[in-house]
Amino acid sequence: MSRRLIAIDWGTSNFRAFLVDRDSGECLDSVRSDAGLKSLSTDEFPHYCEAQVGAWRKGGEVPVYLSGMVGSARGWSEAPQLEVPRSATDLADNVVAAPGLDNAWIVPGLKVVREDHVDVMRGEEIQAFGALALLGLSAGVCCLPGTHSKWARLEGERLIDFSTVMTGELYHAVRFHTLPGEPARGSDAHDADGFAQGLAAADHPAGLMHALFEGRSRHLYAGLGAHQVGSFLSGVLIGAEVLAQREHLLDHQGAVVLVGSSSLNPLYRQALERQGIRVEEVDSDNATLAGLVALAERHRAG
Amino acid sequence: MSRRLIAIDWGTSNFRAFLVDRDSGECLDSVRSDAGLKSLSTDEFPHYCEAQVGAWRKGGEVPVYLSGMVGSARGWSEAPQLEVPRSATDLADNVVAAPGLDNAWIVPGLKVVREDHVDVMRGEEIQAFGALALLGLSAGVCCLPGTHSKWARLEGERLIDFSTVMTGELYHAVRFHTLPGEPARGSDAHDADGFAQGLAAADHPAGLMHALFEGRSRHLYAGLGAHQVGSFLSGVLIGAEVLAQREHLLDHQGAVVLVGSSSLNPLYRQALERQGIRVEEVDSDNATLAGLVALAERHRAG
Repeated sequence: MSRRLIAIDWGTSNFRAFLVDRDSGECLDSVRSDAGLKSLSTDEFPHYCEAQVGAWRKGGEVPVYLSGMVGSARGWSEAPQLEVPRSATDLADNVVAAPGLDNAWIVPGLKVVREDHVDVMRGEEIQAFGALALLGLSAGVCCLPGTHSKWARLEGERLIDFSTVMTGELYHAVRFHTLPGEPARGSDAHDADGFAQGLAAADHPAGLMHALFEGRSRHLYAGLGAHQVGSFLSGVLIGAEVLAQREHLLDHQGAVVLVGSSSLNPLYRQALERQGIRVEEVDSDNATLAGLVALAERHRAG
Repeated sequence: MSRRLIAIDWGTSNFRAFLVDRDSGECLDSVRSDAGLKSLSTDEFPHYCEAQVGAWRKGGEVPVYLSGMVGSARGWSEAPQLEVPRSATDLADNVVAAPGLDNAWIVPGLKVVREDHVDVMRGEEIQAFGALALLGLSAGVCCLPGTHSKWARLEGERLIDFSTVMTGELYHAVRFHTLPGEPARGSDAHDADGFAQGLAAADHPAGLMHALFEGRSRHLYAGLGAHQVGSFLSGVLIGAEVLAQREHLLDHQGAVVLVGSSSLNPLYRQALERQGIRVEEVDSDNATLAGLVALAERHRAG
């Protein structure tokens, strides 16, 4: 059995593949492209994948593990979404062979279906397991920021509950499709003061939909510059996300494992620390690699 | 002095004019069009206004009072936004003569500028004063639903505080520009069950940005039909608005004067009563008329 594997995070708008040494967890090579799901038709998936990572596969000897929206109905082939609580072993037991490519496996997602909470996840479960493995933890709360941020609680090496917060997507919708976002259409450059004002406004007792409107009223009457409005809106949304989750998933335990990109992690760290929450940071690519390595060790066919 | 007046509510996307008997408050005639501010250039305002209501004006003998965004920098002529607290008399003392049309007056708006709250209003202050006048009240909390909903607290015949909630605009942005809104792009027909589910989801401890995402997860895994998604999202947003304001402006006093259209009032009544808030309803057009009549009585030039 090869002591290498190929880890692929394939989402709606991008493709990232890593050749990994299973023993050290080290990334030996990587390739990225913007060929997300939405730019491919179903029968193109195996060909595109082979074209990107064929040189690493050694004719199928090196296994490929794929996580993310690639396992959705709009992806390569649908993998189940298992109901929580689930462990990395449960995920390994339910991988789906990717049609048209030998020794390639699509990882299942997770879901919550309760009367008062329905939720779905694909890809972040791998990152959450990977992040805790990297930190040597078997329990914790992970914040995985993004278009649809995920907050996941893990206990006893199982992911027991999670919730999705559509922060990134709402930022885009507000910035490009509402009146308060108008001055921010052009540029997305970070403004530290605007962002800090937004974080503070997120605490407003009139709620998120009021705080966003202050992007307009402060621009008119309180000196918030046009170049600050985008960061203000971002601060309101990230601040509101953290505020709600502090009550919901954190139960005031006051610590979170932050699993994001180098661009989002600093913003979330600022928002979390402002609420008195202790942060341990893990890069999201490293978390994906560690999670898929951990899954592969539990995969009997691997 | 004529015992009639012409009341005009002129907003970003529509124009509504009413010929009113000042003594009875009765509406004698009305005209509506979709010639909002954004469809006119500055020098077209007096001509458009004269074309619509010239027959009622009797050569300028009957005064015209205009409220709404017509008094903004993008409107006919900018009227001030006075800082709260303010009475109807304060508004009357600060009307601005509309350039190019004799005996026509633009009503000022209101603003709040505090360190922790900055807000603006144009038009709803008139409706709030009018609604309380129609009910014979000198104090109360008004909810004025719309693209940018306003919640206003009045005491001793003065509007003392208010906040804006961008519910209607966010509904549009989520429905047309996010993934959860995708099944709702086509139709806006009301679905009672979807709306009720949305109101309940608005209470979710993970907050508004999670509750909106349940529009997607419930569509995937909990039987929420494509035709129900729009009403679900509407229920989440209106529910979240009411929930936040119950804490903020209402101080649990448990009663609100609802000043909206015949299409929005029933939805807000349902959301308010669900939270145990008592509702008195006033049609928003009637509130505009009553408010402008009350202002005209206080206007020395009128």
